[in-house]
Amino acid sequence: MIIRDFNELKGTDRAVSDKDWTSVRMLLADDGMGFSFHITTLKAGSEHTFHYKHHFESVYCISGRGSITDLGTGETHQIKPGVMYALNLHDHHTVRAEEDLVMACCFNPPVTGKEVHREDGSYAPADEFAK
Amino acid sequence: MIIRDFNELKGTDRAVSDKDWTSVRMLLADDGMGFSFHITTLKAGSEHTFHYKHHFESVYCISGRGSITDLGTGETHQIKPGVMYALNLHDHHTVRAEEDLVMACCFNPPVTGKEVHREDGSYAPADEFAK
Repeated sequence: MIIRDFNELKGTDRAVSDKDWTSVRMLLADDGMGFSFHITTLKAGSEHTFHYKHHFESVYCISGRGSITDLGTGETHQIKPGVMYALNLHDHHTVRAEEDLVMACCFNPPVTGKEVHREDGSYAPADEFAK
Repeated sequence: MIIRDFNELKGTDRAVSDKDWTSVRMLLADDGMGFSFHITTLKAGSEHTFHYKHHFESVYCISGRGSITDLGTGETHQIKPGVMYALNLHDHHTVRAEEDLVMACCFNPPVTGKEVHREDGSYAPADEFAK
């Protein structure tokens, strides 16, 4: 059994940050669960465009308000506590945080922790890291 | 892109209940994400023993207080907001809710929604439903 506490991991190297977001990696590929699980905070006022071409991701809003636009269809959906979006079609999307957004994210295949967002908003597929 | 709202699903057939718990199935096997994602509430004062022999499960505490005992080692860990436990060894365990516990749960393989807890605390493997 693995026990981890977000509040203890926040200040460690399991927390990956950029200017406008922090992602605490609660579970990564090497935990052997077959998915990774992150608590990600997007800063109020920030906007993020991602395109996970090689991963499925679901995102559940724990706190905060914002919106997500599906760049394929142009549709925008409100994000508030209790709302989940799931990128079942590897959807290209933009997330906007009106307030700090705290989100519980699951990735399949699991993120290894070594990925960086590429110019196209994707993470590389896992086997590119295995080479 | 799938958009679902916990607060809208609570009163629908995506909410599975027993006397002391409710699990809202935000994502199930047929969503094709490779995992399922549930928001599960365990009632204050309740105790639950589970043994997911055929699934990996991670559980992240959004709100409430309680504890988990690993029945293999006898160790007990406190559950509070921010704490996650992951049953990477299919650990036989007992969860106690001191207050209502609201938990974000990921299952791999994904739950189909048709499982029932068996006498041994497990869910059947997915292929038993395919027969």
